[in-house]
Amino acid sequence: MTSAAAAVLVRYQQPLETRSYPVPESVGPGEALVRVEMAGICGTDVHLWLGQLNIPIPVIMGHETVGRIEQLGGGLERDWRGAPLATGDRITWASSIVCGECFYCRVKRQPTRCLSRKAYGISYCADEPPHLRGGYAERILLRGGTAVFRLPETLATEAVLGAGCALTTALHGLEHAPVALNDLVVIQGAGPVGLAALALARQAGALRTIVIGGPPHRLELARAFGAHAVISIEDAPDPLERRKLVLEQTGSFGADVVIECAGHPSAVPEGLELCRDGGRYLVLGQYANAGEVPLNPHVITRKQLQVAGSWGFEPRHVDQALRLLDGSQWKDRFASQITHRFPLDRANEALEHVHRWRGGKTVIVP
Amino acid sequence: MTSAAAAVLVRYQQPLETRSYPVPESVGPGEALVRVEMAGICGTDVHLWLGQLNIPIPVIMGHETVGRIEQLGGGLERDWRGAPLATGDRITWASSIVCGECFYCRVKRQPTRCLSRKAYGISYCADEPPHLRGGYAERILLRGGTAVFRLPETLATEAVLGAGCALTTALHGLEHAPVALNDLVVIQGAGPVGLAALALARQAGALRTIVIGGPPHRLELARAFGAHAVISIEDAPDPLERRKLVLEQTGSFGADVVIECAGHPSAVPEGLELCRDGGRYLVLGQYANAGEVPLNPHVITRKQLQVAGSWGFEPRHVDQALRLLDGSQWKDRFASQITHRFPLDRANEALEHVHRWRGGKTVIVP
Amino acid sequence: MTSAAAAVLVRYQQPLETRSYPVPESVGPGEALVRVEMAGICGTDVHLWLGQLNIPIPVIMGHETVGRIEQLGGGLERDWRGAPLATGDRITWASSIVCGECFYCRVKRQPTRCLSRKAYGISYCADEPPHLRGGYAERILLRGGTAVFRLPETLATEAVLGAGCALTTALHGLEHAPVALNDLVVIQGAGPVGLAALALARQAGALRTIVIGGPPHRLELARAFGAHAVISIEDAPDPLERRKLVLEQTGSFGADVVIECAGHPSAVPEGLELCRDGGRYLVLGQYANAGEVPLNPHVITRKQLQVAGSWGFEPRHVDQALRLLDGSQWKDRFASQITHRFPLDRANEALEHVHRWRGGKTVIVP
Amino acid sequence: MTSAAAAVLVRYQQPLETRSYPVPESVGPGEALVRVEMAGICGTDVHLWLGQLNIPIPVIMGHETVGRIEQLGGGLERDWRGAPLATGDRITWASSIVCGECFYCRVKRQPTRCLSRKAYGISYCADEPPHLRGGYAERILLRGGTAVFRLPETLATEAVLGAGCALTTALHGLEHAPVALNDLVVIQGAGPVGLAALALARQAGALRTIVIGGPPHRLELARAFGAHAVISIEDAPDPLERRKLVLEQTGSFGADVVIECAGHPSAVPEGLELCRDGGRYLVLGQYANAGEVPLNPHVITRKQLQVAGSWGFEPRHVDQALRLLDGSQWKDRFASQITHRFPLDRANEALEHVHRWRGGKTVIVP
Repeated sequence: MTSAAAAVLVRYQQPLETRSYPVPESVGPGEALVRVEMAGICGTDVHLWLGQLNIPIPVIMGHETVGRIEQLGGGLERDWRGAPLATGDRITWASSIVCGECFYCRVKRQPTRCLSRKAYGISYCADEPPHLRGGYAERILLRGGTAVFRLPETLATEAVLGAGCALTTALHGLEHAPVALNDLVVIQGAGPVGLAALALARQAGALRTIVIGGPPHRLELARAFGAHAVISIEDAPDPLERRKLVLEQTGSFGADVVIECAGHPSAVPEGLELCRDGGRYLVLGQYANAGEVPLNPHVITRKQLQVAGSWGFEPRHVDQALRLLDGSQWKDRFASQITHRFPLDRANEALEHVHRWRGGKTVIVP
Repeated sequence: MTSAAAAVLVRYQQPLETRSYPVPESVGPGEALVRVEMAGICGTDVHLWLGQLNIPIPVIMGHETVGRIEQLGGGLERDWRGAPLATGDRITWASSIVCGECFYCRVKRQPTRCLSRKAYGISYCADEPPHLRGGYAERILLRGGTAVFRLPETLATEAVLGAGCALTTALHGLEHAPVALNDLVVIQGAGPVGLAALALARQAGALRTIVIGGPPHRLELARAFGAHAVISIEDAPDPLERRKLVLEQTGSFGADVVIECAGHPSAVPEGLELCRDGGRYLVLGQYANAGEVPLNPHVITRKQLQVAGSWGFEPRHVDQALRLLDGSQWKDRFASQITHRFPLDRANEALEHVHRWRGGKTVIVP
Repeated sequence: MTSAAAAVLVRYQQPLETRSYPVPESVGPGEALVRVEMAGICGTDVHLWLGQLNIPIPVIMGHETVGRIEQLGGGLERDWRGAPLATGDRITWASSIVCGECFYCRVKRQPTRCLSRKAYGISYCADEPPHLRGGYAERILLRGGTAVFRLPETLATEAVLGAGCALTTALHGLEHAPVALNDLVVIQGAGPVGLAALALARQAGALRTIVIGGPPHRLELARAFGAHAVISIEDAPDPLERRKLVLEQTGSFGADVVIECAGHPSAVPEGLELCRDGGRYLVLGQYANAGEVPLNPHVITRKQLQVAGSWGFEPRHVDQALRLLDGSQWKDRFASQITHRFPLDRANEALEHVHRWRGGKTVIVP
Repeated sequence: MTSAAAAVLVRYQQPLETRSYPVPESVGPGEALVRVEMAGICGTDVHLWLGQLNIPIPVIMGHETVGRIEQLGGGLERDWRGAPLATGDRITWASSIVCGECFYCRVKRQPTRCLSRKAYGISYCADEPPHLRGGYAERILLRGGTAVFRLPETLATEAVLGAGCALTTALHGLEHAPVALNDLVVIQGAGPVGLAALALARQAGALRTIVIGGPPHRLELARAFGAHAVISIEDAPDPLERRKLVLEQTGSFGADVVIECAGHPSAVPEGLELCRDGGRYLVLGQYANAGEVPLNPHVITRKQLQVAGSWGFEPRHVDQALRLLDGSQWKDRFASQITHRFPLDRANEALEHVHRWRGGKTVIVP
């Protein structure tokens, strides 16, 4: 094979184009050429397609990917955990690479805020060699320094992509606003990040979990993931009504931890009011800049809140996510979240599916 | 003596009235009758006078007070720390009493959010016996359960009131957003709380402290309290200009910790931008409900911030404040903050002084 | 009824004597007269009986108790959580009362180290009125200030006593050495505290739990409580052998968290070596003073360990334990731990049962 | 120059030998050839010389070093903080290099426990090229990946070496057992680590610091570093007497934080008893394996202690140490600690000096 097809974002809000790029004959030191087995479509991909983030189009999207190694570059003998790597191994990888040397990487140990972080499927222009830097493609070429994880036989590709970057994002987020044993937890949003946060809250021993979101099929998923209660934003469109429902279910004081996975700025002032005094609030869903919202900071003082933000994730969160999936019943729940599969040449339909909030999780099978 | 004079807030925004209340012949179990030696005027008193908080007027204001014991009730033999108490002892006390039994006191250990907390000088109607529940008076009658602290000879009344409730509030606040060794710290606001936060940041080993505020005489005080740099809001009225100045002085990344002691809602979105990524932001100055401000929650996620609120203080913070003052050079600095003294019958002038941001700290000497 | 029978520890290592004490006609303010329904026999009771702790014998033992209210004193209208109390209610209570005023209660917030803490079943001499201060009796008279908890209908007495003070002790302990999501956890000891720690480790999301202990029937219980693996101290009597087994099951590095619930001093140096570098070690089982053990402190430095001790528990841990039991499948597991019941006049057999490590949990049903 | 002299440890407990090694003509990528300006003699060097740690002799000792760059390898353009590097710059560096890829570096983020950590002056055999890997020499060749720090003009070499690895070790240690505002702190040991811990405790706002140690000239240094009180182990040779003195000075309860910098195992059981209940104990001085000591683990449970170990330090602690020195009065105090200087050919006298506990800090000036 000398070329690989890819679905490319060429113009915002226009259909992805199928383009073909040369596959390198040989790979450099530390690199890996990977045949893509399955690529997840993340909600962020819709934001990218809409043009809400500044990226160097044309871009091959796809930052949630599982594939098999076709060629290994010199020196790439072991995965991030130290397991030996060989051609044919099924792998996944952390979507971002950081420099390890800047102020945030070194001095402040905030690697997700690395000053020169780059992510597959987002930060690489497809016009520039080696082109193949996204998951919506037949092949992807991984740079040296990528955190690669060999997948165990016991862990299905569907489980890994059903969890996707939502689970790693939630793992990182909950480090900043931990759920403790017996906590009452409210989750705003029933998308993939909301479900992942729900899974982690349950796993961390939350006594009661309430998911606020929609549409109905997502709330059904939330129940399947173990939510003790759900509140439909369709049935309760008024934030004050939702607050009343949450207070009723939390002994009138609000939740110990509220996790925002909704993405709308208006979720934040609503969510602060769902915390009990002295509670924790995690702003996890505001990855895109969706603008300002009127907020009364007196609430933060008076309710004595701890509010935390969390950005992206590190390779160690991929490690943790894979451990969690492999060692628990959660792998089946996450795998079952995948409801739709499309071939590469129908990538536009796949994207449309996610855009329209249809089904659970949608993937591309090149 | 059978009656005691008091300056009473009878109508919002109207002059305090001097009224006279009966002094009890004998005091009940656990109570203490105290002759007021000096009462501090807190910025909150101005908010109360303006009617910005809901209180049961008429009220004898004054929640920062030092006095001498005239009568001790049965069973009140020791102060909060266990030191013996006697008639004639000079004391101060925590301004609030909590129930110790409610959800916040017991289950969540957030006593400052006690469901039935009451504060001297704020929560007691002067029409109701025993009337004398505020510091702007010749006598105050302390309830059983008040956290009383006997003052050592080495600690002047001026030091205690120069620190006032600002220092205890800042001590509590910094528990929620600690300053660590070598931190770069920005303080928004040069009022008493700002200066107290500055003192604590210095004491906790901050490498560099920058105070943003005004007017000039307050910034002078900030320098005297050890600020490494000050930024005048009069010279730099544009938040973007102030942000530029802070970034220049923090290696372009912003501060490790930013402490809001300004009281204006607009300080909060400004302050979030003064934090480095992964930094801490303390909302300490929004005690009064001053309304909403447009705020972009994406900043909290993207900068991966920790934002904390803190409300009031506990008796243990009074204990800590007195220890800190007594054991350090800070007592002289705080004492020197007192620039104006008024007799009780000129309480209105004293209040006006604080309202107009004149001088350092103003006190009433009944 | 005018008198109540009780099983009394009169002489160490001698049979308990059945004595009779007057039941008060009426109870004082805040007190409660309770008819004992069931009293658990804790391992500590064996230590008391052996004379290993200094107590004011004669003592009515029994600090794990469920009963029904027969009489309520004035002012005792609500339980610790604020629920209304009435005659006939089934309740349990925190075994200790603290002063709330001493250095440890107030200044350092370590109430379990209260300088005048007293525990039912341990600290009260039965010769002194009102005599009835332990659970091995037909009646118990609770002091004002006791943290009483009304039990919901959904929570069987067997579940509460199956968990006993082991669960509250473990809840407090794990605050000092938290188990985080995905942790590898080793528990030394398969007694009630070991099982409770196991339950909490599972509930907190431990990826893998290994229990070291014996005899075989206790290891069976550990499996039933969800241990991923057990190591028998009978099959592997050599600590080096046990270390080898643990390392094999933890990727050769040791556990993230090791929880000592064994009670033998020798468990501590063994356990430190079972931690991975940078791990946490909880010394939870050394409630009794069982003497010194040779220990190399270089291990703590070189392995960069966090070692924590934890003493007793607070009322809020009873609250948490009851919530955890009521809201989960754990209540059935703890209830099933009760394998033997004895009437009050056979209390000596019950104690002997625990002393000989027979069965699961043994209780007295007066 | 084609060769460089070095003082080499060839046989344990035998005089160092002066040997000569070839200086490389050119340096490889990332490397730096440095002319040594001053090298500190650390207490660990005495342990190495005595043969108490297993090292690949012959070894050029010296892991505390300041020098000037003579040659820069390709790609080494900036120091650890990003400052540009040039020939002639005065620098220091972190003594250890870690792999960044092993279980401890990556998964558990405990880089000081890196499985293949190597330290200048300790881990390199001088027989193997390029030989020059220790500070007791005219030249040292730094490996690629060394964390290099360019020194500002404001920071004297004496200050950097007066602080030495003691300050970085203490900075790391206090992360594991933080000193908070107003804490009572006891430091066991008046050597360089003890003084560094004292400096940090003062800087972090300790209310009172007590140093236990000797001989008298070290206690004088402790006073000069701001100790509020010192206890001489010569005057009070009995641990029970020392405990009595500490309790007297800490309100009878013991210290909030006790920092062990003594190095003798017996300091640990003594130190645990110097903590108040609920206090923190840092085992910082047990770098060498000096064997077992009888210890009663019941003390850890009963006193509800937090005990922490800390091993070595990371580059970020060098960064912090230099910031702290440069930004405060501490630089003068640490610089004044250097009391003796020896040329390279008298390295044995220098080592003997430290071995005999003479003077403050001893350095070699090649």
